Amino acid sequence: MTAAEREDRVLERIDKFRQRRPRLLDDVVTLAHGAGGKSSAALVDAVFLEAFRNDELEQLGDAAGLRTPSGERLAFSTDSFVVSPRRFPGGSIGHVAVHGTINDLAVSGARPQWLSAAFVIEEGFPIDELREIVADMSEAAAKAGVQIVTGDTKVVGKGAADGVYISTAGVGVVPEGRQLSAELVRPGDKVVVSGSIGEHGMAVMLARGDLAIDADIASDTAPVHELVELLLEAAPSTRWMRDATRGGVGTVCNELVKDRPFALVLDERSLPVQPQVLGACDMLGIDPLYVPNEGKFVAVVAPEEADAAVGALRTHPLGARATVVGDIIPEPNGIVALRTSFGGSRIVDMLVGDPLPRIC
Amino acid sequence: MTAAEREDRVLERIDKFRQRRPRLLDDVVTLAHGAGGKSSAALVDAVFLEAFRNDELEQLGDAAGLRTPSGERLAFSTDSFVVSPRRFPGGSIGHVAVHGTINDLAVSGARPQWLSAAFVIEEGFPIDELREIVADMSEAAAKAGVQIVTGDTKVVGKGAADGVYISTAGVGVVPEGRQLSAELVRPGDKVVVSGSIGEHGMAVMLARGDLAIDADIASDTAPVHELVELLLEAAPSTRWMRDATRGGVGTVCNELVKDRPFALVLDERSLPVQPQVLGACDMLGIDPLYVPNEGKFVAVVAPEEADAAVGALRTHPLGARATVVGDIIPEPNGIVALRTSFGGSRIVDMLVGDPLPRIC
Repeated sequence: MTAAEREDRVLERIDKFRQRRPRLLDDVVTLAHGAGGKSSAALVDAVFLEAFRNDELEQLGDAAGLRTPSGERLAFSTDSFVVSPRRFPGGSIGHVAVHGTINDLAVSGARPQWLSAAFVIEEGFPIDELREIVADMSEAAAKAGVQIVTGDTKVVGKGAADGVYISTAGVGVVPEGRQLSAELVRPGDKVVVSGSIGEHGMAVMLARGDLAIDADIASDTAPVHELVELLLEAAPSTRWMRDATRGGVGTVCNELVKDRPFALVLDERSLPVQPQVLGACDMLGIDPLYVPNEGKFVAVVAPEEADAAVGALRTHPLGARATVVGDIIPEPNGIVALRTSFGGSRIVDMLVGDPLPRIC
Repeated sequence: MTAAEREDRVLERIDKFRQRRPRLLDDVVTLAHGAGGKSSAALVDAVFLEAFRNDELEQLGDAAGLRTPSGERLAFSTDSFVVSPRRFPGGSIGHVAVHGTINDLAVSGARPQWLSAAFVIEEGFPIDELREIVADMSEAAAKAGVQIVTGDTKVVGKGAADGVYISTAGVGVVPEGRQLSAELVRPGDKVVVSGSIGEHGMAVMLARGDLAIDADIASDTAPVHELVELLLEAAPSTRWMRDATRGGVGTVCNELVKDRPFALVLDERSLPVQPQVLGACDMLGIDPLYVPNEGKFVAVVAPEEADAAVGALRTHPLGARATVVGDIIPEPNGIVALRTSFGGSRIVDMLVGDPLPRIC
């Protein structure tokens, strides 16, 4: 197929896309569409995937895998950050804007190298606060060994944004031979989380101050690329990884099993959750499985490498509470289940609705 | 210097940055800071450059030039798009979001390959309009031969954004041997624009409908990468290029001469401006030199290649009105001047203030 034929085919497809009605229940975008759960997936399916369709995008990983003309493998990823409040225990919008994109690259097997940063700033935003955020970004990038190499700023009128929104994109280099894919996952594999879950979401929720809960919870925002390198060295057969941001571990596990010939069973007693996070979740009626993290990932590893994987992660301060939390089992296909502490079990669906808007 | 030493130095620098007071007249961000002119440059200097300082960023080009471990040359760029209205004669926010980043890569000498797209969407935004914008992006990308390979969507509450903001980032491959830099520019060189100027800014201004001006002006939004390839083939000694978006040709020329040992003289009679654009600019009291374009660039070429450069550009429909518009002269250093139609001359400063907010 020539480039012209390929272009014609795309344009024909877009013509059809323009004429079709979307397969969505809603006519307008809702907060739930941004929550990373079921509605987000529906929006991405009906709007973005359909229009932008190409091989890279259909993998829907955290980052696109690219190959340059000379054959080098790259990963490329982007995220916008709209977290409110902009500063919370453990970090700021600047930290998550850097860590979020580093982590997307890392869990796709890449070594993060370069970031871009684009700012949409509301007129009247204090320069001093902007400098603080930018200092946080610079610090986070330096500590992670990545460079912020290009950027942009736009200003919108008062009331046309809430302070500042930051979009980062990142490029990483994927070492030859690395292969991570949901297609490599098979029954018998072990599910590992890299640490305790739910801290970022709860820290941001409590920092809003409209809940009468006083708990000592700090965001876990951190770059996980060093952890990923340790894991892949100790457990080279690792199948798949994903950082558990919006929608939490529960949603990430659902993304893994969707349309796949296996199920994933989580063991509630093994899930590392700080007691104060568990307490706050209980009071708010939120399941920690759905609370976003900014420095944790889920990995599926080969059973014979599970101990090595956990051992390697625990050598790093950010992986001190890494542990096996579940298993891949043959069926029922496409299901995530939780073995509860009481010996029962229940289905863990994707996140529905948005209990935690603007968390990242 | 080891990586740890480098990190220490950066952290030390950021510590100082946090303690210093910015060298800005304003305490808060103003619309002028987003206009691409003098205030934008001051903000970028005092906030972003100071904090993010590294070799790539200090070049302040349209894109960062990167080199992968295997030695491949890449360009990486990002822009946010907040244009209002989102649809105007000649295009939409979707078109400019794709063309803008393609063009930033192209004028840095890269062949654009991959784009990312991150959306910040206001709650309540119509899904149908989102689909239209996304279709425009997909179409623009397909026509330009680039792929949108990764993306993100965030939703903010009603009133926390004005509809939708789009941030794109792009990666291109720079062919070996290409070198474009303001440092290569020398007296005697010729200044070329790739076509008529001021259409995008005026089209968007008039589309707002709050001016009682009725003129047939369409945005020039278009990808210029094919033009750039034609130019570089015909004029391989080309020194430098920049797309003339925010701040227009006048600001771009000022960015070129700033702190350089030469001046740039534009010839008003040579500047291609459509009569209806000139008319609208006259009525609004805006100089077309400061009006943003989305499909035009300024190039500095070797004098002996100027005819070939213009001839090559004119073989392409988007370059039909390409022409030589000025000269690089030895002095006065750092100045842009305009030889007016009446035989006089005046200084062309950087854009001051923001006559055209949210134009891209």
